[in-house]
Amino acid sequence: MNSLAAVPHHHWVISLVCPDQPGIVHAVSGAIVAARGNITESQQFSSADTGRFFIRLQVESPADRAELEAALAPVIACYDMHATIDVVGRPVRTLVLASSAGHCVNDLLFRQHAGALPVEIPLVLSNHSSLRDLVGFYGVPFESYPITDAASKAAFEARVIEAVEEHDIELVVLARYMRILSPELCERLEGRAINIHHSFLPGFKGANPYKQAHARGVKLIGATAHFVTSDLDEGPIIEQNVVRVDHSRNPAELVAIGQDEESRTLSQAVKWFAENRILLDGARTIIFQ
Amino acid sequence: MNSLAAVPHHHWVISLVCPDQPGIVHAVSGAIVAARGNITESQQFSSADTGRFFIRLQVESPADRAELEAALAPVIACYDMHATIDVVGRPVRTLVLASSAGHCVNDLLFRQHAGALPVEIPLVLSNHSSLRDLVGFYGVPFESYPITDAASKAAFEARVIEAVEEHDIELVVLARYMRILSPELCERLEGRAINIHHSFLPGFKGANPYKQAHARGVKLIGATAHFVTSDLDEGPIIEQNVVRVDHSRNPAELVAIGQDEESRTLSQAVKWFAENRILLDGARTIIFQ
Amino acid sequence: MNSLAAVPHHHWVISLVCPDQPGIVHAVSGAIVAARGNITESQQFSSADTGRFFIRLQVESPADRAELEAALAPVIACYDMHATIDVVGRPVRTLVLASSAGHCVNDLLFRQHAGALPVEIPLVLSNHSSLRDLVGFYGVPFESYPITDAASKAAFEARVIEAVEEHDIELVVLARYMRILSPELCERLEGRAINIHHSFLPGFKGANPYKQAHARGVKLIGATAHFVTSDLDEGPIIEQNVVRVDHSRNPAELVAIGQDEESRTLSQAVKWFAENRILLDGARTIIFQ
Amino acid sequence: MNSLAAVPHHHWVISLVCPDQPGIVHAVSGAIVAARGNITESQQFSSADTGRFFIRLQVESPADRAELEAALAPVIACYDMHATIDVVGRPVRTLVLASSAGHCVNDLLFRQHAGALPVEIPLVLSNHSSLRDLVGFYGVPFESYPITDAASKAAFEARVIEAVEEHDIELVVLARYMRILSPELCERLEGRAINIHHSFLPGFKGANPYKQAHARGVKLIGATAHFVTSDLDEGPIIEQNVVRVDHSRNPAELVAIGQDEESRTLSQAVKWFAENRILLDGARTIIFQ
Repeated sequence: MNSLAAVPHHHWVISLVCPDQPGIVHAVSGAIVAARGNITESQQFSSADTGRFFIRLQVESPADRAELEAALAPVIACYDMHATIDVVGRPVRTLVLASSAGHCVNDLLFRQHAGALPVEIPLVLSNHSSLRDLVGFYGVPFESYPITDAASKAAFEARVIEAVEEHDIELVVLARYMRILSPELCERLEGRAINIHHSFLPGFKGANPYKQAHARGVKLIGATAHFVTSDLDEGPIIEQNVVRVDHSRNPAELVAIGQDEESRTLSQAVKWFAENRILLDGARTIIFQ
Repeated sequence: MNSLAAVPHHHWVISLVCPDQPGIVHAVSGAIVAARGNITESQQFSSADTGRFFIRLQVESPADRAELEAALAPVIACYDMHATIDVVGRPVRTLVLASSAGHCVNDLLFRQHAGALPVEIPLVLSNHSSLRDLVGFYGVPFESYPITDAASKAAFEARVIEAVEEHDIELVVLARYMRILSPELCERLEGRAINIHHSFLPGFKGANPYKQAHARGVKLIGATAHFVTSDLDEGPIIEQNVVRVDHSRNPAELVAIGQDEESRTLSQAVKWFAENRILLDGARTIIFQ
Repeated sequence: MNSLAAVPHHHWVISLVCPDQPGIVHAVSGAIVAARGNITESQQFSSADTGRFFIRLQVESPADRAELEAALAPVIACYDMHATIDVVGRPVRTLVLASSAGHCVNDLLFRQHAGALPVEIPLVLSNHSSLRDLVGFYGVPFESYPITDAASKAAFEARVIEAVEEHDIELVVLARYMRILSPELCERLEGRAINIHHSFLPGFKGANPYKQAHARGVKLIGATAHFVTSDLDEGPIIEQNVVRVDHSRNPAELVAIGQDEESRTLSQAVKWFAENRILLDGARTIIFQ
Repeated sequence: MNSLAAVPHHHWVISLVCPDQPGIVHAVSGAIVAARGNITESQQFSSADTGRFFIRLQVESPADRAELEAALAPVIACYDMHATIDVVGRPVRTLVLASSAGHCVNDLLFRQHAGALPVEIPLVLSNHSSLRDLVGFYGVPFESYPITDAASKAAFEARVIEAVEEHDIELVVLARYMRILSPELCERLEGRAINIHHSFLPGFKGANPYKQAHARGVKLIGATAHFVTSDLDEGPIIEQNVVRVDHSRNPAELVAIGQDEESRTLSQAVKWFAENRILLDGARTIIFQ
């Protein structure tokens, strides 16, 4: 690595997905060598479920994007790869949707502000106005539009779509946004919208999961970050956490206890997305930590 | 407490359940004082769901059972209490049902043998013969009867009922017994049969939960110990544990990983039962740790 | 309890500590009955280490403080009790000390603001100015005084003492305040100052615990909230949490990972303190959850 | 991969360690291609602390060991690698040392017997006779020699050395063996002896860690599996687990609670060792899970 020290170089993150077969790693690493790269992080996975091979690399190299792409192009073609190439640490343009609860929004904004979350948040959209000051404190534009009927809901979603295009949004985060997205919007955002559900899915889908959890008497409650799909609470799971509770907790206390798990689970999922660590293998996620 | 030191005394565990109202603790503690007792452990819970009050006490006293019962009788009558009085540490007569997997049976027998589980196991019944040697090593009688059809299943259950009476069984433990109990047997054993389910209920009820968990791509797998009811996998939950897994685990590996959680979760539930720490509040359990 | 419903009543929290002996619970519950109280929560502990008995009660009663104190006075005298009587949910006046890191301060302020932490924070004092805006957003006064030498440190501590008296402070929270308090200040604040140490004590005392943790190659890192004493990092432990890490994490990453544990551990400790749930038994804490 | 299906092939595990530099992965994967191998699992790590590069591969190939070694030889020479090549799943010859506590020994033997731990245990040596029956049940030879003085300790250790040679032992497991090994024996077994310490190291080194933990009032207790070195309780840490406890637990209860963590932590460490997943980077371990 010393040989690289004197040359200015970039830090790339590369994800490649293709049908599994022998020789892939050799071919890919050959292209990296050709692009004068040094692999600083590497994870791979061969899926027995789908027969696909997944690899994520971080590579330091003096090569620019054109040179790197040129080196990888024959390999990508030969192995029929789906490839993404990005710069490590580039902030991902993220639209946040919220309602009245502020714990997830606060957690995302604080981490972003502290440099712990590589996202850029050009806008927070909410169907309540209660988070205006908090969002404003972090210098992020905030718009709220009450949702009271089908028309106002459609208008809200139209504004979402507009904002996605206006700000070239790469990720939409539902930070305890309490309205169900329309199937059309779910489809349009597929693979780039993350929701936090306040239960340990697949237990307690739908509304009032903490009330359900209390009624069922579970001993652990949890939170699940997952990709949004039109099949409610059924999207690919990204991250889950649980916390122990006992019989003495009423539903309101479960809500309070669960908020910590919601915040950290959602922020973790967003971080992994922003770092290109999440790949999809059918209905399952591969997380390259 | 020094005043008690010279007198031989007993260690009692007392559970009382009644409609909640002011004055219960004072009345109960008065009876304990009357029975020359010292409270060494005490937990109580007032259920907002059912309006019932639950208290569990451990009491050291030179009084014998008759004296203790006499002291408590007026309080029990006055407050319309359901009461149980037992000796701390008395081994609970436990029948174990098993199939071919040995991890839960091994864990129960090892702990019992090591003095860590206050149960007495007069018999293990299985629909497989594979655990004969393991059970025999611990000096516990073992009987196996293959279940191949309705008749052999009925015969097996008849033997269970017979054994329960023959050995005055207080607790039946389904230690990865892989057959569904008949509704009649479930009802007969209600409140005194504990099952270990190999998922984090209410997720993944029914068969092959690890296969379901793999398909759904959950990030934590778990185990649930619960009372057996005729409503499959819906009985009151006693204890749950989870362990983190990632995308690289296939269903067979999930099975192996989950076994540790199954063993410890079941043994914990059995220990609490044997220590009279589990009370029922509708469909929920109260665990007085 | 219905009989109480029509009368306006208070919710009291009572802590009592005394030498252990039979009859305490009966005497205390008798006083509660006399004060027309209903016990809604109760925990007790008899310490084998020190021979002391600890009880914490929550009591609903139409009685005012004078009536309640009058009812308890004979019991307190008879059993030589140390007693505290407070109102459930009363915000505890809390002074926060900070340096440049904002995660703990943000967590405390957000929770306080959201109604999840029963404290009132009249002032944040810091030896850095970097948190001025954050603290200001929550409407809390903020003062910073750089500490560069012995004199400026003494001046800072003099301001702490002054603020404690000025605001009638009940709790001082060191929210990643990175200066060692003088022995005199430690002594003066004994039992009412909580620090968050960024390691799983007693491992890695002193400076740079994450660097130490990396060098030692531990597989879990943690945080410890403890009472401040003049014996550095040796005060009674209130709460601890850990999180799994692996060999790939460098010290800077451990710092980032550990911050979540620091925030939640400190906030938990502050919450328990504010709810009168922490009692001292020699060098150990009793936490009545 | 279908092309390999008709040919009988082996499953190899390869570990390579060398000074870090660009091109290693390409060179290694080239050798794997040359040996007609398919990489089924791969992890790598570049240590910023020591400048060394670590890679572990699992490779399916019709090649025999000679062909595989021939393919790798030039790469190993060129990059100055330390290499180990083994067959996936080969049972590692393991000598177990024990004292009177049986929980770790039981856990190891049960897992080995159940096919969950790829070790072969030709002998258990103990300074107590109490585990004779348990070990015998699993068909493993057992020898006990009381240690009462320096001479009997030296004789015990001489028998350990003899057994290591006699059975060509690759791993020595101290399964709650309660005697300190002599520095000479520690040195002789360096890198191939694993101990379980009953605390969360580096807290509570030395004797009676649970008593120390109680005195210090920690809120989590733990267990640490580590390589044995002559510097007591200072060897490289392999795995750690903790479990929550509260003020009510006395030292004897902590001992009982901690046993579960000890068993699972030690078994996990042994499993990783047997699967060639542990590499040493100075005083730290790299665990390729």
